[in-house]
Amino acid sequence: MKKINIAVLGCGRIGQMHARNVALHEMTSLACVYDINEEFANKVASELGVFAVTDDSEIFSNANIDAILIASPTDTHIEFIEKSVAANKPVLCEKPVDLNINKVNECAERLKNNSVPIQLGFNRRFDPGHLAAKNSLLNGEIGDLHQCIITSRDPGIPSWEYLKVAGGQFRDMTIHDFDLARFMLGEEPTRLFAISNALIEPKIKTELNDSDTLMVIMETASGKQCNIINSRSATYGYDQRVELFGSKGMVISDNRKAHEVKKYSTEFVEKKEPYLNFFIERYQEAYMNEITAFVEAIVNKTSPTVDFEDGRKALVLAETAIKSIASGKMETIN
Amino acid sequence: MKKINIAVLGCGRIGQMHARNVALHEMTSLACVYDINEEFANKVASELGVFAVTDDSEIFSNANIDAILIASPTDTHIEFIEKSVAANKPVLCEKPVDLNINKVNECAERLKNNSVPIQLGFNRRFDPGHLAAKNSLLNGEIGDLHQCIITSRDPGIPSWEYLKVAGGQFRDMTIHDFDLARFMLGEEPTRLFAISNALIEPKIKTELNDSDTLMVIMETASGKQCNIINSRSATYGYDQRVELFGSKGMVISDNRKAHEVKKYSTEFVEKKEPYLNFFIERYQEAYMNEITAFVEAIVNKTSPTVDFEDGRKALVLAETAIKSIASGKMETIN
Amino acid sequence: MKKINIAVLGCGRIGQMHARNVALHEMTSLACVYDINEEFANKVASELGVFAVTDDSEIFSNANIDAILIASPTDTHIEFIEKSVAANKPVLCEKPVDLNINKVNECAERLKNNSVPIQLGFNRRFDPGHLAAKNSLLNGEIGDLHQCIITSRDPGIPSWEYLKVAGGQFRDMTIHDFDLARFMLGEEPTRLFAISNALIEPKIKTELNDSDTLMVIMETASGKQCNIINSRSATYGYDQRVELFGSKGMVISDNRKAHEVKKYSTEFVEKKEPYLNFFIERYQEAYMNEITAFVEAIVNKTSPTVDFEDGRKALVLAETAIKSIASGKMETIN
Amino acid sequence: MKKINIAVLGCGRIGQMHARNVALHEMTSLACVYDINEEFANKVASELGVFAVTDDSEIFSNANIDAILIASPTDTHIEFIEKSVAANKPVLCEKPVDLNINKVNECAERLKNNSVPIQLGFNRRFDPGHLAAKNSLLNGEIGDLHQCIITSRDPGIPSWEYLKVAGGQFRDMTIHDFDLARFMLGEEPTRLFAISNALIEPKIKTELNDSDTLMVIMETASGKQCNIINSRSATYGYDQRVELFGSKGMVISDNRKAHEVKKYSTEFVEKKEPYLNFFIERYQEAYMNEITAFVEAIVNKTSPTVDFEDGRKALVLAETAIKSIASGKMETIN
Repeated sequence: MKKINIAVLGCGRIGQMHARNVALHEMTSLACVYDINEEFANKVASELGVFAVTDDSEIFSNANIDAILIASPTDTHIEFIEKSVAANKPVLCEKPVDLNINKVNECAERLKNNSVPIQLGFNRRFDPGHLAAKNSLLNGEIGDLHQCIITSRDPGIPSWEYLKVAGGQFRDMTIHDFDLARFMLGEEPTRLFAISNALIEPKIKTELNDSDTLMVIMETASGKQCNIINSRSATYGYDQRVELFGSKGMVISDNRKAHEVKKYSTEFVEKKEPYLNFFIERYQEAYMNEITAFVEAIVNKTSPTVDFEDGRKALVLAETAIKSIASGKMETIN
Repeated sequence: MKKINIAVLGCGRIGQMHARNVALHEMTSLACVYDINEEFANKVASELGVFAVTDDSEIFSNANIDAILIASPTDTHIEFIEKSVAANKPVLCEKPVDLNINKVNECAERLKNNSVPIQLGFNRRFDPGHLAAKNSLLNGEIGDLHQCIITSRDPGIPSWEYLKVAGGQFRDMTIHDFDLARFMLGEEPTRLFAISNALIEPKIKTELNDSDTLMVIMETASGKQCNIINSRSATYGYDQRVELFGSKGMVISDNRKAHEVKKYSTEFVEKKEPYLNFFIERYQEAYMNEITAFVEAIVNKTSPTVDFEDGRKALVLAETAIKSIASGKMETIN
Repeated sequence: MKKINIAVLGCGRIGQMHARNVALHEMTSLACVYDINEEFANKVASELGVFAVTDDSEIFSNANIDAILIASPTDTHIEFIEKSVAANKPVLCEKPVDLNINKVNECAERLKNNSVPIQLGFNRRFDPGHLAAKNSLLNGEIGDLHQCIITSRDPGIPSWEYLKVAGGQFRDMTIHDFDLARFMLGEEPTRLFAISNALIEPKIKTELNDSDTLMVIMETASGKQCNIINSRSATYGYDQRVELFGSKGMVISDNRKAHEVKKYSTEFVEKKEPYLNFFIERYQEAYMNEITAFVEAIVNKTSPTVDFEDGRKALVLAETAIKSIASGKMETIN
Repeated sequence: MKKINIAVLGCGRIGQMHARNVALHEMTSLACVYDINEEFANKVASELGVFAVTDDSEIFSNANIDAILIASPTDTHIEFIEKSVAANKPVLCEKPVDLNINKVNECAERLKNNSVPIQLGFNRRFDPGHLAAKNSLLNGEIGDLHQCIITSRDPGIPSWEYLKVAGGQFRDMTIHDFDLARFMLGEEPTRLFAISNALIEPKIKTELNDSDTLMVIMETASGKQCNIINSRSATYGYDQRVELFGSKGMVISDNRKAHEVKKYSTEFVEKKEPYLNFFIERYQEAYMNEITAFVEAIVNKTSPTVDFEDGRKALVLAETAIKSIASGKMETIN
């Protein structure tokens, strides 16, 4: 099979990861890497043995480039998505589409007749564990779903610089859980309630009007209940769990460790090392599977399983959460 | 040490369990059992080798009886508590104090100068696992508490007869979790939000205006977040978990099994048998420890660690949850 | 049902435990306790509210005593077994029958026409976990048994005084594993190989010609393989595991903890407290179930499921292990 | 860093895996693949985008090839090792060196003055879990090592064709465990005892004089005890465990799963999917780490951490086991 030749936009931490994954993936080849910062672009390009680009028009006009992976800063996503579509190149875009729901809605309007595949980078849907949990539900193993509990705690608080521009905990962090909840529930949540606070770093609240610790409850039209539990700082590592409880049973996708070593002494038994540190390690397979799904959508000319509209809807949930925080009420999701 | 001689009121399922525990406990002896139903009283008395009583005045006037354990129907609790206090006999009363918060408040008013020990039967506080989790928090092992998640699912829906008189899921079932939440949080919750539904048996909603599946979020003045997850029917057994997440770490009190057997085949690995069926099996040690605490309060002339006011406050939380369901808002806890 | 009235012989640590169990067990009552040491006997008797005996003839001639539980020093076991049989009183005797195989064989010869129930105190057969493992094998869940691995490590080395008279690690400690192996294998081992050493306390080897660390391999006529792994000192608590591996799968009876609390921090995840300290805590249920089985054998007039001959055969395996250590060869079990 | 350019000899299952790993590894590039079978060589070469070789002299004379990875049939290993050495190309050779200990000894004699790095493919030493266990021992976490237990069961019996030429279970399968035992023990075993049988497929014994189920006990000069438990067919997947028990504690490297999904129903709790099927999946990281170690030895001009002599010594243990089976005795390891 001919490999899909992909250009990766953005050479930051996540861009580097994607570039490396594209280079290693057996269905893809890395065409080039782009960054507005020439030094960054050159460094990553040289490490991976491809050419560097600092003018994105070279990419969209290059007939040898089959597809685009967008890992550049959030405020460039919409522009690059639209340029990819214009160039008829399928695109895999990191989350979120944008921090501004109005811009996302306007983009959606412009793309309403688009048929070029746009896949959103909600990597967790492709995690082998979370996927097996979802399949267990689809196979009827747990009967009707009643409750979905998503625990998602980052291993440590990001830098102040990052926090200032990240768009707030709901849009930056919980957005992954909102998407995962929609994926697991199998139907749209219709109402949402949230609380949040800055218990780790009070300045996040006082200076940024943001939070680091939160809980969300959502409900679907048929009454399914969903709970999201978030914290920016779990000392024991990246805490990523999904629990699906149904009329016939339960399935839990639990945390993954680097290895299965257990230690025993006068003080403890079955002690293990902290969980994998963060998303690049924890979701390594998910990121590779995400590329596989992208290639399959391109090759089979099918819609991506997670698309632009999924990106928009996750952002709508984040907006609704922010509204609920302000009102102290359960808010209807529009 | 002289054993404390205890009369057990009520010979239903939970009364029988308590009578047996009192008889087996090394600090107590079973004086007699009481039930308004003579046949029940005689049967249990005969099995345990004590005398049966059907007129409670014989108990309160009996100088050989040191203390009272109330396991009779809920609507008799207040009467028997007050008779015990009048007779100067320490009392251990099953939860809830009463289903009617006004009656509880009136009783509290009448008892405001009381000094006879009244312990409430919130058995879960005495579970070795839950207690070890709480101690881990008190010892500073997890730093400041940020989030408390209590999962509590019964193994099967109760009978329709029981459901009709139980006072609703919040007052009957969640009341245990409300108390456990207060115990774990170490400070009073100030605001509460709840959703509920009848996903297991829709008639519970349509005919009883009650629920079988619910979620609660509570917040304390300092911002601690608490989540309660309830279902009336977990096919895999009585699901009882507590998770305490803090600034320095986490502690989880997980489910207990009858034994530690794991099975392996072409279809599975590490498969275990369903959890202990219900509260009598799961909280066997907790019920014994509860008696120990009661005896210690009597002997040391200290206040019980969980008392009438704890019973009242758990009921206040249940009332607030019902109010939140109606309003769709986070309600202040008064 | 009328309770079986049992006299307990021996008021040491294990005798006290048995006396308490007999007093608590719903099928039995404690008739009296015996010890040659009057002070010991009085102390235990007083605590449990029964009378003390220092002349054993009072017990064997007492028509109100239905059965005997022997927990006195090993060198009195045979004498008391034979006196029980002569008095037509069923007997439950702690392991081992005796440290001297010749005395055991002579006793067996004298008892060859005996029909009074004699149960040996191999408590582990009655552990809920080990029993569930055995039942899994009997139910065909793992197919034909191929390999049985028994790990058995004590939490700490016994006192020098105890070691001097205990008869050596094989007769004192491994004897439990030899019995458990016979129980699990379901057929007699025919050949045995052993190695041993004193790795914890070298003086055990140099001064007592004994060991603290050993491994045994046994084989049955049909080729089943069994492995026993022993140590006198596991810092992390009493380590008691059984693994049954067969043509269709595997079942493991794993270690039991006091509760299911897991701790998480920057240094670890899923850390638990050390295992239950020793046999009285770990095998609490097994000791109670052992009494149940004893009563059932008495009431139903059936042979005990684990009897004198089982006690003798376990000792034969210990003797064969000692022989193998000397020869460096796999020895035939006679 | 310049990548090490490696030729892979052998295009069977394991050769294909190595070729792919070399191509993916960030420190290496795949120069070419060799197989005596032109069709095989072409197929693998084409998939990986390299050239195919059927005449090995082209490889040893090619100055652009930095190193050799031997994954061809066992009886070609010695020839290719010696050709690599003659060509001054570092070599990573799959286990075993050869099935004939005399040939291995003769080769060792010829290589006695060799300084070209020869690494043996004992992949398990590089498994993150097993390595963490070993490091735990080296760090003093478990004190002095007393007992090492290695459980190693393949997921299913190999083909009859394979069994006929594999050299018997000890030389083909247990050889990995012999090496791992040496690695974990940290000192040479001096005595060995083994039993074996064909419990899965009796014809393996009757027709091939071989076994499918075995146990080994080894002892070191200082008295450390080691136990190896092998089966050719574990229905529940590839079973790979190491237990190190010491004076201060224990460390276990347990089985690895594809994900951490647990299932719950009326029949079970915490049920997981069978273990990773076989060595390619289970030891994926180990195979990559093995290449890293090989490159580091080349670049740093150090001896490989696992070398020709380790390959020879593992085979000596296999020979001693076969001798012990015949004699029924514990045999001295020469």
